Amino acid sequence: MMEDITIRFDDTIAPEDRTAPIFIEGLPGIGHVGKLVAEHMIHELGAVRIAEITSIYFPPQVIINEDGSVRVCNNEIFRYSGEKGTFLFLVGDFQSTSGEGHYLLSQVYVDIAHELGVKRIFTIGGYGVGHFNEVSRVIAAVNRPDLRKEVEDAGGIFSEGEPGGGIIGAAGLMLGLSIPLGIEGICLMGETSGYLVDPKSATNVLSVLTKLLSIEIDDAKLTERAGEMEVVLQRLLEQEKKSEEELSYIG
Amino acid sequence: MMEDITIRFDDTIAPEDRTAPIFIEGLPGIGHVGKLVAEHMIHELGAVRIAEITSIYFPPQVIINEDGSVRVCNNEIFRYSGEKGTFLFLVGDFQSTSGEGHYLLSQVYVDIAHELGVKRIFTIGGYGVGHFNEVSRVIAAVNRPDLRKEVEDAGGIFSEGEPGGGIIGAAGLMLGLSIPLGIEGICLMGETSGYLVDPKSATNVLSVLTKLLSIEIDDAKLTERAGEMEVVLQRLLEQEKKSEEELSYIG
Amino acid sequence: MMEDITIRFDDTIAPEDRTAPIFIEGLPGIGHVGKLVAEHMIHELGAVRIAEITSIYFPPQVIINEDGSVRVCNNEIFRYSGEKGTFLFLVGDFQSTSGEGHYLLSQVYVDIAHELGVKRIFTIGGYGVGHFNEVSRVIAAVNRPDLRKEVEDAGGIFSEGEPGGGIIGAAGLMLGLSIPLGIEGICLMGETSGYLVDPKSATNVLSVLTKLLSIEIDDAKLTERAGEMEVVLQRLLEQEKKSEEELSYIG
Amino acid sequence: MMEDITIRFDDTIAPEDRTAPIFIEGLPGIGHVGKLVAEHMIHELGAVRIAEITSIYFPPQVIINEDGSVRVCNNEIFRYSGEKGTFLFLVGDFQSTSGEGHYLLSQVYVDIAHELGVKRIFTIGGYGVGHFNEVSRVIAAVNRPDLRKEVEDAGGIFSEGEPGGGIIGAAGLMLGLSIPLGIEGICLMGETSGYLVDPKSATNVLSVLTKLLSIEIDDAKLTERAGEMEVVLQRLLEQEKKSEEELSYIG
Repeated sequence: MMEDITIRFDDTIAPEDRTAPIFIEGLPGIGHVGKLVAEHMIHELGAVRIAEITSIYFPPQVIINEDGSVRVCNNEIFRYSGEKGTFLFLVGDFQSTSGEGHYLLSQVYVDIAHELGVKRIFTIGGYGVGHFNEVSRVIAAVNRPDLRKEVEDAGGIFSEGEPGGGIIGAAGLMLGLSIPLGIEGICLMGETSGYLVDPKSATNVLSVLTKLLSIEIDDAKLTERAGEMEVVLQRLLEQEKKSEEELSYIG
Repeated sequence: MMEDITIRFDDTIAPEDRTAPIFIEGLPGIGHVGKLVAEHMIHELGAVRIAEITSIYFPPQVIINEDGSVRVCNNEIFRYSGEKGTFLFLVGDFQSTSGEGHYLLSQVYVDIAHELGVKRIFTIGGYGVGHFNEVSRVIAAVNRPDLRKEVEDAGGIFSEGEPGGGIIGAAGLMLGLSIPLGIEGICLMGETSGYLVDPKSATNVLSVLTKLLSIEIDDAKLTERAGEMEVVLQRLLEQEKKSEEELSYIG
Repeated sequence: MMEDITIRFDDTIAPEDRTAPIFIEGLPGIGHVGKLVAEHMIHELGAVRIAEITSIYFPPQVIINEDGSVRVCNNEIFRYSGEKGTFLFLVGDFQSTSGEGHYLLSQVYVDIAHELGVKRIFTIGGYGVGHFNEVSRVIAAVNRPDLRKEVEDAGGIFSEGEPGGGIIGAAGLMLGLSIPLGIEGICLMGETSGYLVDPKSATNVLSVLTKLLSIEIDDAKLTERAGEMEVVLQRLLEQEKKSEEELSYIG
Repeated sequence: MMEDITIRFDDTIAPEDRTAPIFIEGLPGIGHVGKLVAEHMIHELGAVRIAEITSIYFPPQVIINEDGSVRVCNNEIFRYSGEKGTFLFLVGDFQSTSGEGHYLLSQVYVDIAHELGVKRIFTIGGYGVGHFNEVSRVIAAVNRPDLRKEVEDAGGIFSEGEPGGGIIGAAGLMLGLSIPLGIEGICLMGETSGYLVDPKSATNVLSVLTKLLSIEIDDAKLTERAGEMEVVLQRLLEQEKKSEEELSYIG
């Protein structure tokens, strides 16, 4: 029987090599800002994959790797531990396809963070404004008012009524659901038109995030990565549209 | 693991300070009449928050408070006990996003009412007529025919075939589901165009409700509150629309 | 906690007064043919209500009775036992709102039938042809090929490729799901334009059904009943449309 | 009570006559290429039906057989054991109507395969390109990179970025979900316009598949079968559309 959500840790990695004080979520979303920032950091730091999450709440499809082999679509946890610190990253192909799934998956993510000793979660996303701006702000939210000053000092902007009263999906829910677990939560949203993978917005978010982490990450390859990601995502997006047609056709 | 519906009572409040004979539901709905009436009463009476309900059946998003901190969207129970009587109030950001969720949440609400010693439930809503009327009636329904006369004496109108054979969401289901628990139920629906937060309709409902409760509540600030609520709701509504776009984008 | 599907038998009726060899399903559907035939028979025979089914798979609303009181929307089982025989009837406000709910409710219905000693189930529906016909046939299907001749002798027509390869909802599923229980199943579908409550189609179905039951039922009041039902259903239909708007508004 | 997914093996067939090293999935999909290939092989080989799967995740309807009797819509497993080898086939009326159902059903299919000793699964589908091509390729994917060469030698084409980064439904998920069970998986997708049952595309897929199985299957009747299937599917498709209308009408 299939579980609704399955977590598989790489058992070649010892339990003590899974923990970290910091957890950075960068799942797909508006402008794929979060995904771009998190994947960029994973590559630059050489973070290691320690766990995979699969779920019936993800779209019912497999992804084709470059070598022609397939894998079930998933979310993954990477970990970096080195001179810059110890961080966990959550990245993946998709978020949930249903509202209930968003809650259940986000709860699993914060529960994993809690078990792995996380003290602070960063969720990263885009804030779609629907048009191109000269200057792209980094809008922020926190799950405890006393975190606000620190974020503002790093360049995050708290703007009443933005984003429109709420943050949807894992970026929002992980902040809210980590409150009862005593985990600090900071959401950084890069202003973006929302139409394309947005490396400029990601650069701005990366800047605020690294200040908050007191580390430096080279952002030279962000634009290049955005271009590559755009190609892959266009394919997935096309597939998404086809999927809806096909699902209605075969279901 | 996440429960589908979670109730958290404020444990600084003693169990005997949670009970009440009267329960007033004012969740969001047409013209936000119920929400406006219930929140107005909570403010005027100085009712105290005693419990919070969160659920995977609510939209998958967090609400941003004025100070930049977030909270998971929820429903809340407030309680007033003083010289005017003892009342419970149910208010919140949203109702369920699914039909099944409406049933399951409404059952939880009447079960809570039952446990807290409630003898009578008032559900308050709007009755959308789609156009602006000079006179806005208060249409009523009950869960026992013998309650009808009392409601008519207070100004509630029973009009066969209105509202169109049914009452949807918590306002209707709480009335129906409280029958087997032996709790009396009265629904008051203020006629409204349904397009905006409607303080005139709310004033009329408040008038009937306070007569039935044999209390007086100043309605001077209702219009002012309606204006403030309108601003907040417009934001949420915009967010709702964006959410749908975003969910289809990230899912 | 709420069960997904709840069956409440009237406990003033002894278990031995609940059984019957014949079960007639007439839930809402195309042209409300099944509903009209079953409710007509219930009235003409003076059948007695023995059970009520409520479910989270029904629309989340209450129905307002003529006296202004409400009830949760439901399905009901009536029973007639007298000189014409012993029959159970299944009627109600709605069918399920989801595909999964259709299966789960239909399974409950055939399980109840099985427990009550039912040997044969009749499901009655409309067969929507989208236009008005001079002659309205009664299309039939069975759950065992050897039942076909009997149905044809009574006037039921088996027409390959009609209805289009399948029968949806309870009328179809109850036939299929009763096969493993050894219960015979016959579906009678009155050809109808599908736009209005169709008393002519219902008269034709009643004629075939009563022949199969070897009884006589006066059909004089069918047209009158159809008119009354049309009024009630129009209200519900309007409410349905409003509900969708409201649910999207409050959810 | 109804199980969400039910598997019924024909108990006149001994457990040792259910096993096979090869499992071929041909459920409905784009161009019905998989369904056509699998049903053609079943007929040509004279494979025997050994199990039936029913589920609440299939559309809520029954299928009418030619003799006027009905059956619940299902998926079926056939088995051939003879001089050409021993194969299992999975065919059926529909795939799941929901994303969650796709996962749960696909998991059941690979679990059955595992229990029956299967070492290799072939999933067959169409690859809809939206226009008519002179030459129709057979696009392939595998669940282990080392399977690629064998498939290429048989005529399967691995084309990076086709199909658009993913394979949806059972054809994809069974490949992915069989990885942890140690079962080899090969997906063959016949390029097709996607609008009609496509015997040309099926002929190409059959050619690659039989090379991989080292058997010969006469393809003379494929076009004839495609014509018959087209008639049946048109009916089902019409019924599907009607179903959606009816479900919204009766629900």
